Amino acid sequence: MKPSNTIVRVYRGNITESIHRVHLAVVNTKGSLLHSAGDPQLLTFARSTAKLIQALPVIESGAAEHFGLGDAEIALCCASHNGEAEHVNAAQGILGKLGFHHEHLQCGAHEPYHAPTAQAMRERGEAPTTLHNNCSGKHSGMLALCAHLGASPDTYMSLQHPVQQLMLDAVCAMSDIPKSQMELGVDGCGVPVFGMPINHLALAFARLGSPEALPELRANACQRIVAAVRKYPQYLAGSDRFDTQLIEVTQGRIIGKMGAEGIFALTVPDKGLGLVLKIEDGNQRALYPAVIEALKQLDLLSAAEVSQLAAFHTPTVHNWQGTEVGIIRPDFQL
Amino acid sequence: MKPSNTIVRVYRGNITESIHRVHLAVVNTKGSLLHSAGDPQLLTFARSTAKLIQALPVIESGAAEHFGLGDAEIALCCASHNGEAEHVNAAQGILGKLGFHHEHLQCGAHEPYHAPTAQAMRERGEAPTTLHNNCSGKHSGMLALCAHLGASPDTYMSLQHPVQQLMLDAVCAMSDIPKSQMELGVDGCGVPVFGMPINHLALAFARLGSPEALPELRANACQRIVAAVRKYPQYLAGSDRFDTQLIEVTQGRIIGKMGAEGIFALTVPDKGLGLVLKIEDGNQRALYPAVIEALKQLDLLSAAEVSQLAAFHTPTVHNWQGTEVGIIRPDFQL
Repeated sequence: MKPSNTIVRVYRGNITESIHRVHLAVVNTKGSLLHSAGDPQLLTFARSTAKLIQALPVIESGAAEHFGLGDAEIALCCASHNGEAEHVNAAQGILGKLGFHHEHLQCGAHEPYHAPTAQAMRERGEAPTTLHNNCSGKHSGMLALCAHLGASPDTYMSLQHPVQQLMLDAVCAMSDIPKSQMELGVDGCGVPVFGMPINHLALAFARLGSPEALPELRANACQRIVAAVRKYPQYLAGSDRFDTQLIEVTQGRIIGKMGAEGIFALTVPDKGLGLVLKIEDGNQRALYPAVIEALKQLDLLSAAEVSQLAAFHTPTVHNWQGTEVGIIRPDFQL
Repeated sequence: MKPSNTIVRVYRGNITESIHRVHLAVVNTKGSLLHSAGDPQLLTFARSTAKLIQALPVIESGAAEHFGLGDAEIALCCASHNGEAEHVNAAQGILGKLGFHHEHLQCGAHEPYHAPTAQAMRERGEAPTTLHNNCSGKHSGMLALCAHLGASPDTYMSLQHPVQQLMLDAVCAMSDIPKSQMELGVDGCGVPVFGMPINHLALAFARLGSPEALPELRANACQRIVAAVRKYPQYLAGSDRFDTQLIEVTQGRIIGKMGAEGIFALTVPDKGLGLVLKIEDGNQRALYPAVIEALKQLDLLSAAEVSQLAAFHTPTVHNWQGTEVGIIRPDFQL
């Protein structure tokens, strides 16, 4: 595998203790590569970045309209959310509209990502439910599509289920990968996950933000998703989260989504661009520093915006006592 | 920085989702490089691998003898332990011999590494103390040295304190790094941490296991440390931990220690070898797979021993539901 010299350094004191290598692809809506670092065709999994694409059939099928899903609920379908009150309530809201409840969600339960929310629950002796799972919005969207199709909700996570087949079709079409060539695995939350070269995922995001050349039904669904996330960035992630703040700071000029194992995909609708960045080793700590640095160097973020995102750009490293012992800094030129 | 093609792959389904690069140095007691991968002079921090070297002045000063520290207690001084009952009791035991208690430890408190112990404490509503901190043995050893020197226990973590100066001297001498060239930072537990090229740390470990050429006082202290850890591997780490099992499986033929940010240092006393392996990006998940694979290829572990360590060699990856979704596999030839 071709090594990348596009790196993020983790300093302790005055020296580099560890480094993270970065692969990057920036493409337009035709899939032409405009910028790259490392291997722009690196094969990896889209993980949760695919959620914005997977939401397409929920809208295109008429399920969203039939069940009256609002923009906050659509944004939640695209989320790796924090498990804060508004996220849990919105997931419960979607399920209520379907006549379902949290036990229909098969994503499993984990503590809210939002540490104060998790801490408060522990203090109340309250166990997390499937609603707190960061993927509960995506799974609720899957159940909405399932209910609208009249398919069984018991097996909605299986690759053969019509819900997963529709989502696979959407991801294949948006990324220009034939169905036979899409790599498939199982995600953290149990559903199929999509493996493809990062430049193809970037193409899907370019088209999501600038869908003019797509068929009308799909173009409308893309616009609905981008508008929903732009209007309700808090529902895409939550308090103190980069995905939310990137949208807020750029006033919706950039819409991006993180995924597990250090992947980030974003669209800049006004420029017709899609960008995907993968930390080779999968470590999240290098992800936002690298994304912000890349956006800065590509003139997609202003100096003022970079400064507003400074805590994500060059985060400090603390030890058990809370003492500052180091810093994380991108160190590359595109 | 020179990229390494010595890698560990993290698979999800059939494809590689992330990779980790490995740097390796194997040296003899004269510091001659016998084997390498990536950059054998990579500069990084020794982190907790240095604990076995830092224990030297606790013995050489006469503190260990004066306070009657036993072999299990010496092993705990070298540990990043699990916070299990025997570890907490041993740390308390050392402090008791000094007339100190857990509030003299300045390492901070965190939940035991050993998940069942942490879970049981949570269920009992019991908060962790400094005794549960994985470094409480090292800090207790520092306090033993401090008390024996008649120095103030209030400032024992400061670089200028005689305890830290003696430990710095020992690390410099064992690794052949002049004091003026040793890089210093602050560790997770607040004390100074030592930055040096990995081949120099490997030299310190070669000498630790085969100290014949060292001055008698130091050679005896090295032998005491190796013998203590060999006799009480459970005190070096704990249940389900690699460091403990590596010693048990090899019946003490190999003595090794992990450190944070993906570093491992070991000695093979019978062969006069020291080996240091660093995961470039600092991720622990790739560390034991790489160490075992390197030891296997260097004929330092038998096939039967590798097989006994299989759960550390090629660990499976699970998702929130506990489903097996991937595997971690070393992929290199030294």
